[in-house]
Amino acid sequence: MEILDELLNSTGEWLKGRGEMSDIVISSRVRLARNLQQTPFPSRATLEDREMVLELLHKAQATQGSLSETIFLDMEKITALDRQFLMERHLVSQEHSVFVKKKGLIFNREETLSIMINEEDHLRIQAIRSGFTIFEVWDVINKVDDELSRMIPYAFMPDIGYLTSCPTNAGTGIRASCMLHLPALVMTKRINKVLELVAKLAFATRGLFGEGTQALGNFFQISNQVSLGVSETEIFNNLAGVIKQIREQELQARELLMTKYKMSLEDSVYRAVGLLTHARLMASTETLHHLSVLRLGVDLGIITGIKTELVNNLFIITQPAHLQKIKGKRLTEEERDYNRASILREKLKEGQ
Amino acid sequence: MEILDELLNSTGEWLKGRGEMSDIVISSRVRLARNLQQTPFPSRATLEDREMVLELLHKAQATQGSLSETIFLDMEKITALDRQFLMERHLVSQEHSVFVKKKGLIFNREETLSIMINEEDHLRIQAIRSGFTIFEVWDVINKVDDELSRMIPYAFMPDIGYLTSCPTNAGTGIRASCMLHLPALVMTKRINKVLELVAKLAFATRGLFGEGTQALGNFFQISNQVSLGVSETEIFNNLAGVIKQIREQELQARELLMTKYKMSLEDSVYRAVGLLTHARLMASTETLHHLSVLRLGVDLGIITGIKTELVNNLFIITQPAHLQKIKGKRLTEEERDYNRASILREKLKEGQ
Repeated sequence: MEILDELLNSTGEWLKGRGEMSDIVISSRVRLARNLQQTPFPSRATLEDREMVLELLHKAQATQGSLSETIFLDMEKITALDRQFLMERHLVSQEHSVFVKKKGLIFNREETLSIMINEEDHLRIQAIRSGFTIFEVWDVINKVDDELSRMIPYAFMPDIGYLTSCPTNAGTGIRASCMLHLPALVMTKRINKVLELVAKLAFATRGLFGEGTQALGNFFQISNQVSLGVSETEIFNNLAGVIKQIREQELQARELLMTKYKMSLEDSVYRAVGLLTHARLMASTETLHHLSVLRLGVDLGIITGIKTELVNNLFIITQPAHLQKIKGKRLTEEERDYNRASILREKLKEGQ
Repeated sequence: MEILDELLNSTGEWLKGRGEMSDIVISSRVRLARNLQQTPFPSRATLEDREMVLELLHKAQATQGSLSETIFLDMEKITALDRQFLMERHLVSQEHSVFVKKKGLIFNREETLSIMINEEDHLRIQAIRSGFTIFEVWDVINKVDDELSRMIPYAFMPDIGYLTSCPTNAGTGIRASCMLHLPALVMTKRINKVLELVAKLAFATRGLFGEGTQALGNFFQISNQVSLGVSETEIFNNLAGVIKQIREQELQARELLMTKYKMSLEDSVYRAVGLLTHARLMASTETLHHLSVLRLGVDLGIITGIKTELVNNLFIITQPAHLQKIKGKRLTEEERDYNRASILREKLKEGQ
């Protein structure tokens, strides 16, 4: 698919390493859950219902101003590799990449906006940007939502708000989240205490790929648990407060590492560089670990000459589907490990 | 001590990586155990007896032609650091470096010859060279032994041969050994089988620093167990036979790695290089491991531009006493790890 090959050679805006607090806040994301009136929700819908939703959204994509720069994809019409590729870029969920019957995707080239069609809800609208930019992201998504709501009759009840497949999403239908990089809290073994506090404040912590995924590479996605009975502004302000507190803790942990454990920290960072620039075979979990430590080294000025954007990009392009699209063919696990190591060496050599 | 500072900047002949089979046989060594007639052996000798032996040997060192290029050291008169330094260079045993009362050392600048005075026996004469050179080494030590025997009345009984503190050394008083580097046998998990065979053939296996030391860095010292009732020639010929067999096994294991496991082998070698050239703190055991893998990489032509002699030398100069002599002061363990990592980076950068 030509458009996906284009993506392969670009970096999503949310990985640029810019925006407020971008040393720790990789990206900010708002996701809206929306459903059509008088149409069974996806889990109960017939194929005809789903087909109708898909066509309606395809029409919307072609006509709505806020979607004028977007692309429409029928998930059934692309290869399994391309679906995995979209998942690796965080444009679709894992579920959306595996079960694809009558599913669709609308997204823009900057990868700041995507709409999954017929996932858990009829519409899952997502906007994302790098850094702590939750309010900017909200402006974008709000505009899209407003426009779509004029064309599409949303399932909505005055007392509750938007109706969703899962009651935890009902109300505003909003999930706002930030992807945080917290290596120093992990290294100083303070992370669990911080995450307990986050849970007490009714925020959820998830891994790199959302619900049910592990906190690989010291990435933690923090999002609101409650979307019912609170306003959008409350959700965003609360999130902002929590993110600032976590960032404060991470900065303190970094300060501790830089003062009391500097030699050992530098050792860890340079060892990561040594392995990333020398290994001939590198599995994906190991890669995430080393890139995470390298990113910390770049943030703290231990490593100069390698940009945060490059490191962020390496997290993405060393994933299995990316490696296979770059190579233009299916690869075995060992071939992936080999190609991953080659790409890391090549890109980090350029970047040094 | 000026002479020891000179040694610090030179590499012992036995580490030059030359001589027959030097890909696998680091060095060949012959050690003779000799004692004076009518003088209690060191463990039972009075201080006066020991003093007498020490003085006799000092005189011998000053007058005998075969010792004309040697240095005499009173072990009591050098610092604990210098004693450890001599042990790290394999010029004295661990015991000789710790318990030093009335002990002496005679050695030459090339470090091919050394005589420990009042170790387990009155005289422990050692000759060593790089590669499989057991017969050349024997010629050297034999000449020294002949000359000393004319001046010093050795404890000798026609039926038994030379008398020694421990009966296992009696007879010829010879221990002949080769230091082997067997990384491929370790990697392919064949080493135990090979060492079992070695034991059956009545040869002993020891670690890097002789009796009671571990097989660190994949180095194994193979020596004859029996010195009684066999001739010198038999000992050397038997050793030569065993060494050739072990080398054959190691070469087969290397061949297997280079054919069936090439990618994984290259990965291990380059990871070792990456860590050796990047780490900021490196403990001694880890260093031995990485240098061992690097040496294999150099032997197999995976790494070019780094010479075997440099790698061999790094094994020696990254030891604690060497690091402290290079730095000119006592170092804590963490300081040693830091300096070890610095020296490795510096020397391997030069060598690449």
